[in-house]
Amino acid sequence: MDMAVILCAGLARRMQGFPEHLPKQLIRVAGREILYRTIKLLKERGIENFIFVVNESNREPIEEFVKKLGISYTLVLNREPERENGYSLYLAKNYVKGRFVLTMGDHLYSEDFVERALEGEGLIVDELALYTDREEATKVLCREGRVEDIGKGIEEFNGYDTGFFILDESIFETAERLVGEKERITLSEIVKSAKLRCTFVSGEFWTDVDTPEDVERARRELIRASVKGVGDGFVSRHLNRKFSLWLSEKLIEKITPNQATWFTFLVGVFSSIVALLSPALGGILYQLSSMMDGIDGEIARASMRTTKFGGYLDSVLDRYVDFLFLSALALWLKPTTAFLPWVLLALFGTLMVSYTTERFRGAYCEDAYRVIKSLRFLLGKRDERVFLIMLFCLFGWLKALFVFLALLTNLRVILTLYLVWRERGRS
Amino acid sequence: MDMAVILCAGLARRMQGFPEHLPKQLIRVAGREILYRTIKLLKERGIENFIFVVNESNREPIEEFVKKLGISYTLVLNREPERENGYSLYLAKNYVKGRFVLTMGDHLYSEDFVERALEGEGLIVDELALYTDREEATKVLCREGRVEDIGKGIEEFNGYDTGFFILDESIFETAERLVGEKERITLSEIVKSAKLRCTFVSGEFWTDVDTPEDVERARRELIRASVKGVGDGFVSRHLNRKFSLWLSEKLIEKITPNQATWFTFLVGVFSSIVALLSPALGGILYQLSSMMDGIDGEIARASMRTTKFGGYLDSVLDRYVDFLFLSALALWLKPTTAFLPWVLLALFGTLMVSYTTERFRGAYCEDAYRVIKSLRFLLGKRDERVFLIMLFCLFGWLKALFVFLALLTNLRVILTLYLVWRERGRS
Repeated sequence: MDMAVILCAGLARRMQGFPEHLPKQLIRVAGREILYRTIKLLKERGIENFIFVVNESNREPIEEFVKKLGISYTLVLNREPERENGYSLYLAKNYVKGRFVLTMGDHLYSEDFVERALEGEGLIVDELALYTDREEATKVLCREGRVEDIGKGIEEFNGYDTGFFILDESIFETAERLVGEKERITLSEIVKSAKLRCTFVSGEFWTDVDTPEDVERARRELIRASVKGVGDGFVSRHLNRKFSLWLSEKLIEKITPNQATWFTFLVGVFSSIVALLSPALGGILYQLSSMMDGIDGEIARASMRTTKFGGYLDSVLDRYVDFLFLSALALWLKPTTAFLPWVLLALFGTLMVSYTTERFRGAYCEDAYRVIKSLRFLLGKRDERVFLIMLFCLFGWLKALFVFLALLTNLRVILTLYLVWRERGRS
Repeated sequence: MDMAVILCAGLARRMQGFPEHLPKQLIRVAGREILYRTIKLLKERGIENFIFVVNESNREPIEEFVKKLGISYTLVLNREPERENGYSLYLAKNYVKGRFVLTMGDHLYSEDFVERALEGEGLIVDELALYTDREEATKVLCREGRVEDIGKGIEEFNGYDTGFFILDESIFETAERLVGEKERITLSEIVKSAKLRCTFVSGEFWTDVDTPEDVERARRELIRASVKGVGDGFVSRHLNRKFSLWLSEKLIEKITPNQATWFTFLVGVFSSIVALLSPALGGILYQLSSMMDGIDGEIARASMRTTKFGGYLDSVLDRYVDFLFLSALALWLKPTTAFLPWVLLALFGTLMVSYTTERFRGAYCEDAYRVIKSLRFLLGKRDERVFLIMLFCLFGWLKALFVFLALLTNLRVILTLYLVWRERGRS
C-alpha cells in the first residue's frame, strides 16, 4: 500500500482568530501545519503517492504547500464541494489503484495512532475518543467487524469515526452508485451502504480541528506527548518536565529546537560564571538550566523537527555545562593537593555516567535505558545530580559535595558496567 | 541459497607437529579450527544447512565438533575415500537441492573472500593466489566464463582453483556419469567435463592447509588482517600496531580477548601509580599500555571472538586509565588554584575527544571515522596523545603538558562538532 487520498474540499467555516485566507488544513498546531503532520507520518510508513481533493478556494494555497514538500502528488479539484465529502471521495476514483489510505486533511493524528491504524482494515473506529469533542463527533455502530450504523445523531453506537480508513478500489462501486442517485452524498452514507469493515484503534491521540479550542487542546496534547521520558530521573519526572513543558508550550511557535539548545547552554555557562562568585546563586541557575534542558527535545518532537544532530549537540553541550559548573565550584573551593583527587574523581565520574550509557548505544545501536530497565532506577542521572548539587551549594557544603559526587557517579559507572555485562556480556 | 557441502573425506597425510588423532579440518589456526572458520563465515551469510562428507577415520571427531556448534547438519560417510574428492561430491547428491556452496574442509578463507565468492557462479578462481603455495596449487584456464582446463601440471592457465564453488544440482549429472565410468574421479575432472562456469575473485586471503608452514603463514595473515585501523592515529600505524601484532601472534593461542583487555588495563593502572613517583617512568609504562591496547581487538578478530561488549569494556577502561594517569601527573605537580583550570580542561578535553566520536555512533549507528574522513587526519587521537604525554613526561615538562593537552583536546572536540555539523547537521 503506497497511496493516500486526503480530503481537503470541505466548506469549513473559518475559525476565529486564524487568518481569513488560510485553509484549515494549513493551520499550524504546535509549530507544524495539520496537513504536514499527516503527510509526514504517512510518508515515514511507506506512503509515496498522495491525492488531495481540494475545492476552488483552497486549491492554490494547498498546491503551493505540497509542492514545497517534494512529494509525489495529484490534485483533484472538487468544483461542487456542497455535494459533500462522499462526492469528494468519488472524484478520486480514477487516480487510485489497489489498497489505499483515506483520511481527512483537517484531522490530527499521533504517530502511535497512524502506526496502529495502518494495520487495520476499513474504517478505523475509536471506542474512547479521549482527545476530541465527543458531542460533535460522528458515532459508529460496529458489529461483527462491519459498520452497521454511522452518524452524528445515532442512539446506539460503540465507537467514534476517526476519519481514517484503509480501503480498496471496490469502495468506488458504492460511491458511484450513490452519487448517481443523490445530489449530496456524505462519506458516512457510503460507509454504511458498503457495510464497510471496521477496526478498533482506541485510546490514541487523534482529533478533528473545528474550533480554536480544538487547536489549543491538540497543541497541548502534542507537546505533552513529546516527552521521551525513558531516561528521565526522579527530579525530571516530578519537577523539570513540568517546567519545561510549560515553557515549551509558550515557546514552540517562537523558537527552533536548536535555538532552545543554545539558549539552555548559555544559561548553564552563565550559572558557572555566577558560581565563581556565589555557589548558592550559581546552583539555582544551574538547576534552572537543567529544568530548561528538556525544551529543545520537546519542541523538536512536538513540531516534528527532530534530528539526530540535535540530540548529539545537546549531549555534548550538557557535558560542557557540567564540566564548567563543577570547575567553577572547584576554583571557588581552592582545593589542597590532598583534596584534589575528590575533585578530579567527581568531575570524571560525572562525565562517565553519560559516557557509559551513550557508549552502549554506540556499541549496540539501542538505548541503554530501554534494554537494561534496572538502569532507570539507578540514582545519579543528570537531573538528579544537578538538583543535589544545587542543594549542596545552597547549604554551602562544597567539600562534601565533591566527595559525594565522586562516590555516587563512579559507583553508578561501575554498576552500569556490571549491568551491561550481565545483559550483553556474551554478545 | 542456504546450503553448503564441505568435503572432509580426503586422505591427508598427517601434518608434522600436530596430534596424530586430529583431522586436518580441526587444526586450530590463530585460535580457531579451520572448519569453524568456514562454517561461521557461511552461517553469517545465510547458509543454514551443512553437509559434511567425511571418511571413516575422521567421522567421529568431526561429528563431535559440529554437534557442539548447534548448526543443522548432515554427515555423509565416504567409505572409499581413495576414489578421490569427485566421488565425495557425488555422494552428497541426495542431500542437496537447488543452488549450493561447495568448499573444502581444509581450506581457510577470509571474510572478504567469502563475501565476494558468494556473489560468483561456478568455480571461484584467483588470478594471484598471493597467500598459498602456488607451486602446489591447482591451476585453472578460464576462458569466456568457462573452465577450459584445470590441473596441477597444466601449461597454460590464468588462475588458481580456490576450492570454493557456487553450484546447482545439475553438477551431479556429470558427477554420476564420470563415477560410472571410472573408479577414481577428482573434482577437477568433473569441473572440466562439466565446462563449469568460473568467476574471478582475486587478491583476497585464502589458502589450503597442507603443511605446518601453511598453518604458520595463515596464522600470521589472519592476525595481520585483524587490524581494524580506521580510527588509528599516526603513532598507532607506525609503532603501536607493530608491537601489538607481534604480541598478538605470541599470545593468540594463550589468552582470551577479555583477558588481554584487563591485562592492558592493569598495566595502565600500574603506570599511573608509578607516575606518582616518577612521571618519566610512568610515561614509558603508559605508552607501553597504549601499545598493548590493540591486542584484545586483534586477538578477538583473528580468532573470531569479537563481541560488542568487548569493545564497550575496552573503551570504558581506556577512559579510566587516561583519567588515572593524568590525575597522577596532576598530583605530582601539585597545581595552584591559578593553574587548576588547565588541569581540569586537559582532563575534560581528553575524555571529550572520545565522547564526541562515540556519541556520534550512538546517534547515527555509524562509525564517525568512516563517515567523516577528515576526522582521521585530526591530531589528538588516543595513540598520539599518549605518545606525546610520554615525551613531555620524559622531558619533565608537566605544566606545559597540561596547557598543551587542554588546548589540543578541546580544539579537537570543537572541530569534531563542526565536522559533524557540516556532514550531518540536517539529519
